[in-house]
Amino acid sequence: MTDPADATREWARVRIEPRGDYRIFTTRIDHCASPVDGHVHPFVVIDAPDWVNVLARTDDDAWVLVRQFRFGTRTTTLELPGGAVDRGEDFVTAGARELLEETGYAGDATLIGVVTPNPAILSNRCGTVLVTGARRVAEPKPDPNELIEVVTMPDTEADNALRDGRIDHALVVAAFQWWHLHRADRD
Amino acid sequence: MTDPADATREWARVRIEPRGDYRIFTTRIDHCASPVDGHVHPFVVIDAPDWVNVLARTDDDAWVLVRQFRFGTRTTTLELPGGAVDRGEDFVTAGARELLEETGYAGDATLIGVVTPNPAILSNRCGTVLVTGARRVAEPKPDPNELIEVVTMPDTEADNALRDGRIDHALVVAAFQWWHLHRADRD
Repeated sequence: MTDPADATREWARVRIEPRGDYRIFTTRIDHCASPVDGHVHPFVVIDAPDWVNVLARTDDDAWVLVRQFRFGTRTTTLELPGGAVDRGEDFVTAGARELLEETGYAGDATLIGVVTPNPAILSNRCGTVLVTGARRVAEPKPDPNELIEVVTMPDTEADNALRDGRIDHALVVAAFQWWHLHRADRD
Repeated sequence: MTDPADATREWARVRIEPRGDYRIFTTRIDHCASPVDGHVHPFVVIDAPDWVNVLARTDDDAWVLVRQFRFGTRTTTLELPGGAVDRGEDFVTAGARELLEETGYAGDATLIGVVTPNPAILSNRCGTVLVTGARRVAEPKPDPNELIEVVTMPDTEADNALRDGRIDHALVVAAFQWWHLHRADRD
């Protein structure tokens, strides 16, 4: 039987085999040696930049949300503004930039939490940036392929949307967890 | 300017271009036409089976968790048991099977919530199965490549681990949201 202590040890990476390049992420096969018996097995990894999503809160306790058609699920979703962190950016800078581009809103930005989207296959992290005092300061300037409807929703209604599944993006659910923890810490 | 009503409309898929096959998922490029101007753009989609994770609760208010080395982040994580739903399985069957294989625990299983792991690029869903009265009934039988340490943790300590980031897998965070909503509904 495997000693449980072995289970948590790192598998040494003996070879990296680059695979697909999909612009917003790449794939590779990591050939790794078991810490128990040394046998080498292949594991696929999706290499993506870090992502950020933004809880932008207006002074009348509403969230700034976005509706858009999503190509993975081929459904129109209700989500937080967000996107990929550019090289050299931190989460706060990236979050403020994505919020402004997608919605035209700005405010006071703070990083309140970080998750791993899927540590089994994804290399990256996703940060949640809270923007308080959010107000519309400009026209949205989304990327040419981004057709985004900006929606403001009272926070109580957003809680209902999380409960009934209208908001069902796991990274958005995680972002709201950080909000509830952040708020509890301040109360 | 784009009419906001356009933003939420489906982009017609005019061509599907298969790309990589990575065993646990495949990739494809969907060439889709903008509902606004008809121009066709490529969007990458990761096609994966549905996933399931399991909140297995013992009668003394502890969760059954797993520690394992993860190849995406190359870190040892603290997570819920879970895995891919096999063809023809429902979430409850898959969750009970994964729990038994990875930990040797079993109990009364119910589906309490479903999220989309990332609707922008992933086609699949992730269900959360609550197993109450969980008890060890067998030796774990993980896959040969899975080196898993089974950990039971009091629920109050798991809440701390979510707060301090020891549990940071977004799908696990989402699972615990379903637990808190489920419990609130029953109180």
